[in-house]
Amino acid sequence: MLTLAFDTSFQTVAVAILRDNAILYDTIINIDLNHSEVLLPVINQACLQTGIKIADVDLFACTIGPGSFTGLRIGAGTLKGLMLATGKPAVGVSSLAALALNVSHNSKIICSVMDAGRGQVYVAYFRYNQKSLLEQIGADEVVNPADIDPDFKQNVLFAGDGAIKYADIIGGTKKKNIFVASQQQQYIRASSVAILGIEKFNRNEILDAETFVPVYLRSADAHPKKAFFKK
Amino acid sequence: MLTLAFDTSFQTVAVAILRDNAILYDTIINIDLNHSEVLLPVINQACLQTGIKIADVDLFACTIGPGSFTGLRIGAGTLKGLMLATGKPAVGVSSLAALALNVSHNSKIICSVMDAGRGQVYVAYFRYNQKSLLEQIGADEVVNPADIDPDFKQNVLFAGDGAIKYADIIGGTKKKNIFVASQQQQYIRASSVAILGIEKFNRNEILDAETFVPVYLRSADAHPKKAFFKK
Repeated sequence: MLTLAFDTSFQTVAVAILRDNAILYDTIINIDLNHSEVLLPVINQACLQTGIKIADVDLFACTIGPGSFTGLRIGAGTLKGLMLATGKPAVGVSSLAALALNVSHNSKIICSVMDAGRGQVYVAYFRYNQKSLLEQIGADEVVNPADIDPDFKQNVLFAGDGAIKYADIIGGTKKKNIFVASQQQQYIRASSVAILGIEKFNRNEILDAETFVPVYLRSADAHPKKAFFKK
Repeated sequence: MLTLAFDTSFQTVAVAILRDNAILYDTIINIDLNHSEVLLPVINQACLQTGIKIADVDLFACTIGPGSFTGLRIGAGTLKGLMLATGKPAVGVSSLAALALNVSHNSKIICSVMDAGRGQVYVAYFRYNQKSLLEQIGADEVVNPADIDPDFKQNVLFAGDGAIKYADIIGGTKKKNIFVASQQQQYIRASSVAILGIEKFNRNEILDAETFVPVYLRSADAHPKKAFFKK
């Protein structure tokens, strides 16, 4: 099964093609260009360099948030276009879960922290269960970095650009069991989006092209704190 | 500081460009083409898509083994060409250490296992020290997978294509504390080569273009076991 996965939820653009669980192509690009200018040329490059045509792809996978409003719209729009044009199934993957997959096989609690701009971060907690599968603990949140105060007795490993940016603030005074993942683990990899997407496909969690919308955490439903409006 | 890093030691070709520790471009390509046909076009793509010229690069980093004889020669040859043409410094990075960096911030012992063909694997053990820096335990080895028998009381996490291929054999009967990293952590990432390369550069461990040679483990010095000659 060929899976084409991409991510535009983040500062970066990432594209991957997998045959079953094996990576054929996996790329991250982090340049000062609009995601809409970068995504299609990179998908095109991925196809060219692997000799794979869009029509050959069996499954499309894309991050559906949380993340930048514009980035998520570009991802969702592209995904819908691909679904409608090919009639192939698609799955949506949490961007915070994809980040957590960068540090798999870890016994620590994993906290994915994505810079949300305006002094805020998107946050979710994960752990690996006994079958080494990723499990989310609680819901995605949008908070001020100073309010990240994980109430776990276990060690907590922070991953994501928000973790690097706010490393000094996160965890308050209880620094003892706080770790920050390496720099090269701070980016969403489209191969991780594909791996999680294939799991969703196998559970039959397929998107409906006509109705699905990205997870815009910072909507009226998210009840942002006052600090959100200050900057 | 701009670093261009690449890896051809493995089944894949990987290229990355980093500005300091931040990834600008990071790609893995895993297709049935000779590494010599893939490497330069991918370096070219990396430069084109980031708008960076080879002349702008401050440091070159390349895996220098262990790995496939031909792959290492292509990497080393390209590295020497870049050094001579630009006069910029270069560093050589262990391919097994780059693999281990895929699973950083892990409290387990990490065993990088790369398929060496002919029924053998390249192996090295690593751990993360208290500063979260990677430390190798012992030397690189080329062994039969059945002979991988880590004598550690701690949990051991295997990473690399050899670990996937020989998952049933590795660790013999003592399976209890053996783990195998996820599929997307089985590939050498050029961003990891860059990160380790920058550390080497900071320790002034620069390559001499005229004299350096890759680490060909399976030479006369490596005293391969008899099984090596059987296949």
